[in-house]
Amino acid sequence: MAQHNAFYAQSGGVTAVINASACGVIEACRRHPDQIGKVYAGHNGIIGALTEDLIDVSQESDEAIAALRHTPGGAFGSCRYKLKDIETHRAQYERLIEVFKAHDIRYFFYNGGGDSADTCLKVSQLSEKLGYPLTAIHVPKTVDNDLPITDNSPGFGSVAKYIATSTLEASLDIASMCATSTKVFVLEVMGRHAGWIAAAGALAGEGEGEPPHLVIFPEVAFDRAAVMARVDACVKEYGYCVIVVSEGARYEDGTFLADSGNTDAFGHRQLGGVAPTLAGMVKQDLGYKYHWAVADYLQRAARHLASKTDVDQAYAVGDKAVELAVAGKNSMMPAIKRVSETPYEWCIEAAPLAEVANREKFMPGEFIREDGFGITAACRRYLSPLIQGEDFPPFENGLPKVAHLKLAKAERKLPDFTI
Amino acid sequence: MAQHNAFYAQSGGVTAVINASACGVIEACRRHPDQIGKVYAGHNGIIGALTEDLIDVSQESDEAIAALRHTPGGAFGSCRYKLKDIETHRAQYERLIEVFKAHDIRYFFYNGGGDSADTCLKVSQLSEKLGYPLTAIHVPKTVDNDLPITDNSPGFGSVAKYIATSTLEASLDIASMCATSTKVFVLEVMGRHAGWIAAAGALAGEGEGEPPHLVIFPEVAFDRAAVMARVDACVKEYGYCVIVVSEGARYEDGTFLADSGNTDAFGHRQLGGVAPTLAGMVKQDLGYKYHWAVADYLQRAARHLASKTDVDQAYAVGDKAVELAVAGKNSMMPAIKRVSETPYEWCIEAAPLAEVANREKFMPGEFIREDGFGITAACRRYLSPLIQGEDFPPFENGLPKVAHLKLAKAERKLPDFTI
Repeated sequence: MAQHNAFYAQSGGVTAVINASACGVIEACRRHPDQIGKVYAGHNGIIGALTEDLIDVSQESDEAIAALRHTPGGAFGSCRYKLKDIETHRAQYERLIEVFKAHDIRYFFYNGGGDSADTCLKVSQLSEKLGYPLTAIHVPKTVDNDLPITDNSPGFGSVAKYIATSTLEASLDIASMCATSTKVFVLEVMGRHAGWIAAAGALAGEGEGEPPHLVIFPEVAFDRAAVMARVDACVKEYGYCVIVVSEGARYEDGTFLADSGNTDAFGHRQLGGVAPTLAGMVKQDLGYKYHWAVADYLQRAARHLASKTDVDQAYAVGDKAVELAVAGKNSMMPAIKRVSETPYEWCIEAAPLAEVANREKFMPGEFIREDGFGITAACRRYLSPLIQGEDFPPFENGLPKVAHLKLAKAERKLPDFTI
Repeated sequence: MAQHNAFYAQSGGVTAVINASACGVIEACRRHPDQIGKVYAGHNGIIGALTEDLIDVSQESDEAIAALRHTPGGAFGSCRYKLKDIETHRAQYERLIEVFKAHDIRYFFYNGGGDSADTCLKVSQLSEKLGYPLTAIHVPKTVDNDLPITDNSPGFGSVAKYIATSTLEASLDIASMCATSTKVFVLEVMGRHAGWIAAAGALAGEGEGEPPHLVIFPEVAFDRAAVMARVDACVKEYGYCVIVVSEGARYEDGTFLADSGNTDAFGHRQLGGVAPTLAGMVKQDLGYKYHWAVADYLQRAARHLASKTDVDQAYAVGDKAVELAVAGKNSMMPAIKRVSETPYEWCIEAAPLAEVANREKFMPGEFIREDGFGITAACRRYLSPLIQGEDFPPFENGLPKVAHLKLAKAERKLPDFTI
């Protein structure tokens, strides 16, 4: 069988385990020398392909690639850049073909979330619409857990474990202090449109009165009076109140509690600051002393506390992507299928990319408790397996060891291209 | 030798390892049945003693006590409450004597920071000034690392490891994203008056251009123009800029960058929100896209990432406190002494409490780099040993296991007392 090269790139917000997927892709490619020659990594996602800014992964040692499994962030650089339609922006697609031809690239692996799945879907049409023989596979990743088809998204399990653990730990802190000091603690977590990460905070406690006492979801319209009444009741009953709030928390009319006024490169509003906003309400309406934390990037970079389930799945989708590609399956995404819940078992199945792209998976209504402030037993059954197991990185000199790649650039063969 | 009971309590902001000190105290007491009978823990610190709100620790199993070693927060409740002078508030001291007499308490262990050392010092005067035979030992604890005499404070090493690790991890995240998205990341850390925790963030990188690119200390007057110039230079040179900023960052005139306007029970100003304040300056002055995180309680509760050195030292000061007490050494504090730096070796030595109380240890000038934005090699040599080693807690069902105590109250023998 003829040997051709592969392209791999990372897109969208990175996670604690996206490099584990990179590791899965690259190690699998190295197991198929008959079909796959070099792996070129796009520097900063699809931008690397468009600008012929390619990293020659063949120059990285097996050890360096193995170390990607325990390295957070996106080792090859990620991007927030969405390809336009092939019909209206044909020049970009022709450029991609030029670059792929110049480097004999016939396998395309794109590692990202919903927006990136759309980019991958468009690239996968190169073969059909422009006659270039490319097999494009999307490798799923997103801390938001909002990809459809797949039971869960790699990256989510680790942030869920981090948020659940942090909520548990901080709750013990505030429980110690509440008699004479802080009574309300607010932890702001990611999740623009879907409350999956906020829901994970609820895994910290289960019994009556166990923190977190309130989870505030984007899916439930924020009712200040109802929230404050509940906070007050908790402080009076338990002595303190722990709140996990999603950055996407919003009022009935859709206005976010904390709208920073900025938009990201995809046109999404950049959020942040709901925790201090909510803490301010607590102070104003109830007068309780508060503390608040905004985990921000810490939560999605916390490889030191990754879920082993998540790391295994992130690696597996990368590995499986290559298997699908060498089997000639274009425009697919390896999806995680939950085979059984107790004990938790999973496998990887291929899903058509057209069914994945541009669709968000919201929390099912039955996952949110009737009062809107917590999760149901069904949600707990869904979430709990995803945070199971630890996969601590090696430490050196007190800090996690991370991969150090050469990141040698492939020789450029084409003229510049402006995106 | 006659057997008497002991009192142990936790005071001030709790840490990831204050319960390891509790474990050290209680296990050591159990090793001295000839001299020490029951241990009574004060519920919510000294308030538990004043109000005769005592937890009978003898009812806790050895296993439960051992589990304290890996449980964050303050298991017996902490407090922010400072005893007034013995001369002006004699009634409180007489009440303490009544409670101690009623429960045959002759050993007093108080686990806290600078303010708590002051309380312990005052209690230690009961024997001399009021003739009650009490041996009072202060068990050091503070994430702020601002206790004098001791080379470092138990609790600091773990928060230092957490902040260094989080800075490293988040820096990898932003480095991946900076080409098309976030260019500046701001992490706010604790440290009201001393920049020890902010300095620990600098352990994340050492080489030229390695993040964090700026550390902003309370010890260095904040100069907006200078900071922004440096941020801009970093973004232009490295593509991004990571800033670790102390909550205590302040202007030349002493005004805090972010003053929430509240004060805590000790009269200290409650701070918070310097990260969004600084991020706002970045947006306003430079126009760069930013993200910010405020670790708040997460940093001092993060037992899952404790420094083994710190856990060992926290246990050791608890253990040694009991040894000092049974040897009749009143008004002392077990202090950590650095015996050698390479390899790092330490021991515990007794320090007179009068030399500890009400004194803050600031960062030595020679620990801050000349430009004010980083740490010196001397500071790195000092800090590095404190984050060495991991001491992961056991995990169960995906989350850290924590101690579950009975917290049975001792029978009350006295009338109520209002504090």
